[in-house]
Amino acid sequence: MEINYKNIKVIGFDADDTLWVNETYFRDAELAFAKLLSKYETANKIDQELFRMEMDNLELYGYGIKAFTLSMVESALELSNYNISTKTIESILNIGKDMLNKPVELLDGVEEVLKTLSKKYRLILATKGDLLDQERKLEKSGLTDYFHHIEVLSDKKEANYSKLLNHLDINPSEFLMIGNSLKSDVLPLVNIKANAIHVPFHTTWAHEQVSEEETNGKMYKTITSLKEVLNLVK
Amino acid sequence: MEINYKNIKVIGFDADDTLWVNETYFRDAELAFAKLLSKYETANKIDQELFRMEMDNLELYGYGIKAFTLSMVESALELSNYNISTKTIESILNIGKDMLNKPVELLDGVEEVLKTLSKKYRLILATKGDLLDQERKLEKSGLTDYFHHIEVLSDKKEANYSKLLNHLDINPSEFLMIGNSLKSDVLPLVNIKANAIHVPFHTTWAHEQVSEEETNGKMYKTITSLKEVLNLVK
Repeated sequence: MEINYKNIKVIGFDADDTLWVNETYFRDAELAFAKLLSKYETANKIDQELFRMEMDNLELYGYGIKAFTLSMVESALELSNYNISTKTIESILNIGKDMLNKPVELLDGVEEVLKTLSKKYRLILATKGDLLDQERKLEKSGLTDYFHHIEVLSDKKEANYSKLLNHLDINPSEFLMIGNSLKSDVLPLVNIKANAIHVPFHTTWAHEQVSEEETNGKMYKTITSLKEVLNLVK
Repeated sequence: MEINYKNIKVIGFDADDTLWVNETYFRDAELAFAKLLSKYETANKIDQELFRMEMDNLELYGYGIKAFTLSMVESALELSNYNISTKTIESILNIGKDMLNKPVELLDGVEEVLKTLSKKYRLILATKGDLLDQERKLEKSGLTDYFHHIEVLSDKKEANYSKLLNHLDINPSEFLMIGNSLKSDVLPLVNIKANAIHVPFHTTWAHEQVSEEETNGKMYKTITSLKEVLNLVK
């Protein structure tokens, strides 16, 4: 069964790593963090422990840069066995602040795709993470006017999407979600009988990775560049 | 000119310190923080410097407990002239985690007021701060079903409210906002020609305080307990 594009009335876009660069900044931050702690552990071990800390804190802190920064500080205490210097703690806080101050770098073709599709479809932005940070990035992006609705979700599971579609009075079969994360932008949509297009970004956070089994037999389309959407949805 | 309650169709409620206790937890956290740093500075100076740090970081971090925790860590580095111990840094992180784990304590009369008003009015919740934390508190509160719409705002200025009312297709004259903060829940509403009732909480964060001049001649009603709303809006 193929996606029936003729049914689509509303198109949802993920933001981070779908419209603009994000994961790259996290990878850079992890590298900088590992460097700061290099006298205590190997880069690999530091990466692993930071990820474990993020997962331990996920329920309490949620997603986003502030959560990530708090987990870096806590990891640094543990990894150094409390021997980390206060100057290094300061450097960690500054890694987080630098991330919040990053410019927004649009991915290839984003503006063209939004401009074209916004003429015929209602477009919504559905992103997760930190409310203020996401609003700031959207404003910096200059893309606000293409969207009928902006929704920052605390998570992107089936229930979050069902609630959103319900709230906006959108029938799942008429909704198409486009994003880089199989776990957050594709599978939950397919599972609630909406439609999804996967546009992989070159880097995927471990937390967003899914096994082959999870995607087996699931109905979604994969494209390699956002611009290809214009060949599918007309 | 009095509020014309007969025009009201939609009632907005603030959450923190209007429906449930919040500021008290921040005051307790500040006391705990000052105690941790008591060998470096007086409690008064610590309070002042933490507040200054919060204000310096407000644009970047926004509101909420994660922002507050990051500002506590940064303040501790400065106040101790980088002599703070890593164990104390850990204690500061734990102050933040404890705050996120606090139970939700409803204020007097909240359930009765919401139950009564929800029969005749569309109720919405308009709160600011951390998205995940506010969603979690609402769920813990058991009050979700009273509200037609929940909006977590990154700030509560005139533009934020105008956008919200516009989005929900609500005429300002038909909207009544109820909250504990003159700065966030009352004055911006009055300024966009909506209506507002002020229900002071016993503690107000310095950032939310307004001068007498700012309230001079502004049209809003002040009550001492939320339950009094039922005498006004019928």
